[in-house]
Amino acid sequence: MINKCVQAFPRSEYMRRLAAVKEEMARRDLRTLVVTDDSNVAYLLGYTAQSGYVPQGVIVSADRGEPTFLLRRQDAPAAIHQSFLDRDQVVGYPEALVGNPDENGFDAIIDLLHDLGAAEAGLGLELADLPAPDVDKFRRRLPAARIEDFTGAVTWLRIVKSDLEIAVMREAAAITDAAIRRAGEVLRPGLRESDAAAEIVAQLIRGVDGIPGTGTANSFFLCASPRTGTSHIPWTEDVLQPGAQVNLELSGMRHGYVAPIMRTFSLGTPNDRLRKVHEAELAGLEAALDAVEPGRTCGEVAEAFYRTAEAQGVTKESRCGYAVGINWTEPTASLKVGDPTILQPNMTFHLMLGNWMEEDFGYVISETFRVTESGADVLTRSPRDLLKLC
Amino acid sequence: MINKCVQAFPRSEYMRRLAAVKEEMARRDLRTLVVTDDSNVAYLLGYTAQSGYVPQGVIVSADRGEPTFLLRRQDAPAAIHQSFLDRDQVVGYPEALVGNPDENGFDAIIDLLHDLGAAEAGLGLELADLPAPDVDKFRRRLPAARIEDFTGAVTWLRIVKSDLEIAVMREAAAITDAAIRRAGEVLRPGLRESDAAAEIVAQLIRGVDGIPGTGTANSFFLCASPRTGTSHIPWTEDVLQPGAQVNLELSGMRHGYVAPIMRTFSLGTPNDRLRKVHEAELAGLEAALDAVEPGRTCGEVAEAFYRTAEAQGVTKESRCGYAVGINWTEPTASLKVGDPTILQPNMTFHLMLGNWMEEDFGYVISETFRVTESGADVLTRSPRDLLKLC
Repeated sequence: MINKCVQAFPRSEYMRRLAAVKEEMARRDLRTLVVTDDSNVAYLLGYTAQSGYVPQGVIVSADRGEPTFLLRRQDAPAAIHQSFLDRDQVVGYPEALVGNPDENGFDAIIDLLHDLGAAEAGLGLELADLPAPDVDKFRRRLPAARIEDFTGAVTWLRIVKSDLEIAVMREAAAITDAAIRRAGEVLRPGLRESDAAAEIVAQLIRGVDGIPGTGTANSFFLCASPRTGTSHIPWTEDVLQPGAQVNLELSGMRHGYVAPIMRTFSLGTPNDRLRKVHEAELAGLEAALDAVEPGRTCGEVAEAFYRTAEAQGVTKESRCGYAVGINWTEPTASLKVGDPTILQPNMTFHLMLGNWMEEDFGYVISETFRVTESGADVLTRSPRDLLKLC
Repeated sequence: MINKCVQAFPRSEYMRRLAAVKEEMARRDLRTLVVTDDSNVAYLLGYTAQSGYVPQGVIVSADRGEPTFLLRRQDAPAAIHQSFLDRDQVVGYPEALVGNPDENGFDAIIDLLHDLGAAEAGLGLELADLPAPDVDKFRRRLPAARIEDFTGAVTWLRIVKSDLEIAVMREAAAITDAAIRRAGEVLRPGLRESDAAAEIVAQLIRGVDGIPGTGTANSFFLCASPRTGTSHIPWTEDVLQPGAQVNLELSGMRHGYVAPIMRTFSLGTPNDRLRKVHEAELAGLEAALDAVEPGRTCGEVAEAFYRTAEAQGVTKESRCGYAVGINWTEPTASLKVGDPTILQPNMTFHLMLGNWMEEDFGYVISETFRVTESGADVLTRSPRDLLKLC
């Protein structure tokens, strides 16, 4: 028998999360809920293994205690090891449902729903996370169920972090900062972009101060001249040139939680334009952080950024941030003009000021912060200068 | 203006792929096709940036030449840089469609379909790749279109590789082998799993013989005692113990293509059980490779493995492999009993013999091979012994 790993959170933390989910289920008169979004599964169970490329789901019943996690049998030991669940609540479905054009793991989930008596009551599904043919299957095989879309509901519960979650995000942030320091050590003209990426990613895994990264955030971007106008390409095979600009976006990861950052490096004296954009963005960043206060809206924070940066001649089309936590972006609140989300203590955001202004020119800076009782507490602590390396 | 990068493939290769897609469209009487699956987008365009977490799609019209790639405006420069497309065929949709609960990038795609006159003809969508609410939107906003499910059709075209693709997969395989060598250098009792992972992942990025990895395969698994019964957890913070077993699964990546491998390391003299399983699996692996021949089926290859391993007392529940290429698993043919797919030259498979036999015991070995005119050509070249390190 496999043992449980040291859990990132106590059982009481998971029971608190579960209680909040059940409250929302009660509000919608749902007897059963199937959670399939990978980040929501991690939130409810502490399970971060990469098995979600085949069907799996957490089944929450209004009238039962712990949820049941139904996943591929091959991955059940990982779920017993990682999750807070009693081992009886981890159920593996057989391999015959994998790579099978006629039946898949959702059939096993639907069978379980029938066994649980969920077939004729309110049933929540995360419809936007499910492939259309699988939603059709749920409707076809559960014709008497009242299926309601639960998309985003668990995600919205995640937006206010517990102090325990903040502590984990601080660990991730320390790793983030260590990787930025490592970038400062290795980025030099003459180095291949891929060799730089190797060193920086290794730091993200190795961690800092005895605390390793516990996974790879799938997002790691190193966009160097002449590609600073791109945001999401991988590093290339090119050698960094004297005077090159390097835009970095990365995050450490602890137990699935991230604390991302962006920084711009200049391998030589930055030109006037880059310096001017940096100054405007930095002023905007500070203005946005100053605007953070419980009771204000996400939109007001965004306005502070745009107003300040624009006063210095810099516009930015994209939103200037989003809620952040497990697996990077939480698709809930955005730091963008008009977003009505009211800030509350322990909400966490990636204030993302990446600005891809022209096809061949962009600049990046960002911070991960949490909302405090009175303002913003920036979790990432790297220097905010335009990082010059010669 | 951003320049194109050195393309992994010549334009003629992409036009060949496009012609095959159009042939399938003609067979189904489709005037238009929207390709959204990330791996299929990479196949058709050479685009590997990680922007597919927001809507994007390749629109192929039966009566036009190059397809149009519609994606978030912020990512358009990356598409111009990476893809073979003329820059006019890359169209960015505005940021207002991101993080917007009412409209998203699929609305921009539907608008374009109206402009293209595609609203009243056959339209292919990859339904299993689309969230259910977005499929509803396509149906609602294109009520006169005859929507057909194109899921898997492009993926099936990918199953036979061109010689150019095989050459790229050989580069990925060389990086894979370099990472296994690096694992042999660093894995020792007393080392933290995370520190081992950092070294091995760095090698995957750094590459070998001057050929770097061009991305991270998102799958990298290091499952050590007492967790060898798990298949998809990340490394942990534990220190490797004397006598520990380490199961590794990893791949180098070149231009999105992978060539995965699994190997089992023993940090001390392997016990009898492990040695016995290794011998049975190795015999099964060789039998499976011997069974590969154009005209035979995937099922026959699987039977050769199971028959041989079972004769030595080892059973395995999961399938013993799958088609492999861009971004790892191609969800088409499986090496499993009964799979009727007939082997053809230049099909490539991950012969995946990972065997998680008990909750706390598993063993892994695998190879990536291509089908030749007469047999199997193994692209990965690492030694197949039970790799003993003391």
